[in-house]
Amino acid sequence: MLTQVRIVGAGLIGTSIALALSTRGIRVELVDSNASAAALANDLAKAEAVEAPELVVLAIPTEAIPLAIEGEFLLNPNSTFMDVGSVKTEPIVHIKNSSLPLSRFVPTHPMAGREVGGAHSARADLFTTRSWVITPTPECSRESEEIVRELIDLLGATAVVLPAEEHDRAVAAISHLPQIASTLLAHSLESAPAEWLDLAGAGLRDTTRIAASDPNLWSEIIFSNRDQIVGLVQRMHRELGELLENLESKTAIASFIEKGRFERSRIPGKHGGKAREYTYVPIVIDDKPGQLAAIFNECAAISVNVEDLNIEHSPGQQSALITLALSSHDADTLSNHLSAIGWNVHPILK
Amino acid sequence: MLTQVRIVGAGLIGTSIALALSTRGIRVELVDSNASAAALANDLAKAEAVEAPELVVLAIPTEAIPLAIEGEFLLNPNSTFMDVGSVKTEPIVHIKNSSLPLSRFVPTHPMAGREVGGAHSARADLFTTRSWVITPTPECSRESEEIVRELIDLLGATAVVLPAEEHDRAVAAISHLPQIASTLLAHSLESAPAEWLDLAGAGLRDTTRIAASDPNLWSEIIFSNRDQIVGLVQRMHRELGELLENLESKTAIASFIEKGRFERSRIPGKHGGKAREYTYVPIVIDDKPGQLAAIFNECAAISVNVEDLNIEHSPGQQSALITLALSSHDADTLSNHLSAIGWNVHPILK
Repeated sequence: MLTQVRIVGAGLIGTSIALALSTRGIRVELVDSNASAAALANDLAKAEAVEAPELVVLAIPTEAIPLAIEGEFLLNPNSTFMDVGSVKTEPIVHIKNSSLPLSRFVPTHPMAGREVGGAHSARADLFTTRSWVITPTPECSRESEEIVRELIDLLGATAVVLPAEEHDRAVAAISHLPQIASTLLAHSLESAPAEWLDLAGAGLRDTTRIAASDPNLWSEIIFSNRDQIVGLVQRMHRELGELLENLESKTAIASFIEKGRFERSRIPGKHGGKAREYTYVPIVIDDKPGQLAAIFNECAAISVNVEDLNIEHSPGQQSALITLALSSHDADTLSNHLSAIGWNVHPILK
Repeated sequence: MLTQVRIVGAGLIGTSIALALSTRGIRVELVDSNASAAALANDLAKAEAVEAPELVVLAIPTEAIPLAIEGEFLLNPNSTFMDVGSVKTEPIVHIKNSSLPLSRFVPTHPMAGREVGGAHSARADLFTTRSWVITPTPECSRESEEIVRELIDLLGATAVVLPAEEHDRAVAAISHLPQIASTLLAHSLESAPAEWLDLAGAGLRDTTRIAASDPNLWSEIIFSNRDQIVGLVQRMHRELGELLENLESKTAIASFIEKGRFERSRIPGKHGGKAREYTYVPIVIDDKPGQLAAIFNECAAISVNVEDLNIEHSPGQQSALITLALSSHDADTLSNHLSAIGWNVHPILK
């Protein structure tokens, strides 16, 4: 049972872990070479000194591990160690070159983050419902892995075991290439005067959001994982060249957009959720209290299970559109039932 | 003064305009070749028949204008006409080739949209705080321009006058290139198995959000504006090639990220954002039937108004994270109430 945890690094990830553990009654202590970050983080997490931590979390950039590890191992000779870096083959090399036995080190990567960093951006629920990859080496002890799994469970995340190399290939595709594409797109704004940028909508804003990320952090990540990234960038370069040759063909452009739309649809709808096939029941309601409760009561009464819900409503608008996502069978049942008792149900969308 | 508006096209833009006008007491009627879209849109907007509209809004794809315009002009010989297409040089050519005098046509482009289309995605506040470009020709009458400006004002948007050619250059950079970059990035997911996509976070989701857009709509837009787009794509292609050559240099990668960060920071923060300021109440619930109904019953019992809702599931987890969007006051009330009766309410997010 985890009772004491020491966290090295009072950034977004370290502080969020501390906040979450502290909420659950576990003693935590944060240390950081930046004294004011450490003070803020310890204050936020109501941290106390920890003498014998079962677990030491290295929440620092991977390149900083060699410098930190000897001192930490000396201070905590009986602890299990884990890191939280975005590339997983590299920290294993650092630990191999250190005094810490590999049996006591668990490489991990929480699939959570924000484009803003630092202790002040920390959230106790940063990891809730997220996946947390662990890439244990063959040398890793069962006991160390269990301690890390306990931490992940406590934080409300789900442990996913992957080989380190597969993890690095996966994040190249789902995290590092998006960073490169977003940055590349932001570059093209160089030729846009301010009056054009004033017209920008949510599309430009969302696609370039992560272009605001920290250059030091990201040059480190991309450089460390360049072997996995290079093939993806080559492919992107080739496809962009093909599009250039096809700009005179509306059909070719449509295929280009259609293929992107298909691949995009493969991303699960919510963090870690499955890409399930729902059927949608649109209902137009008046904007008055109790309408949603009434609909959910009807759902409960006829035992249909609502998987997701969307509300389109704006301040001042006298109607709202409720769209319920259900299984195909439940959608038919609910649509017939609500229509029969007078709700304004529109045709089902598949 | 605008009193009656006829809207041709019951898609996202047409229906959103109808919702907003109807809220402000203006009579609207929507027509669409798709009867069920027209029915839903007219229902949502509480529309009625309109006999003598001062304004006819062509909320249809630019390529559909030639087919629609003669009939609409015959029906509404005294009205002003406007379109809402994403490229502005082309509709002017269509009107020149029609019976409608250019003096009565105002080319416009609202800088608002969603990656989902159709009447069911419409919102009365879609245009609130957004820019709405108008590109009047020299022939355009003062009276017609004033009618269109009144509509834009009513919808809470801000009219911005630009020459049609400059508009098309601007949207190539701030709208069409982001669409291409997002689609291109989504293509690269082809090689990612489903287990990798399960790990995807907000970065991938945001950068590929608009890749879900309609291929017919977008091939039309990109093809129409290819003369303005081609130079931007060439430049992006060249820069991606340079990055490929620089992947062995951490300093060069950092400069690449840093330049993107700088250009991103030039995008104004407030324009284009929703004027809604919601406060979010996160609630962790057990994954069992009736939980949502119970929460909405509590909301109804204490008369708080839920504006939006998000459900996050995680595979293999017995809990779900429900996030309710409310006004700041209602969020406090609900959070205190649900906590007091034993719900697992997390701290409010602003």
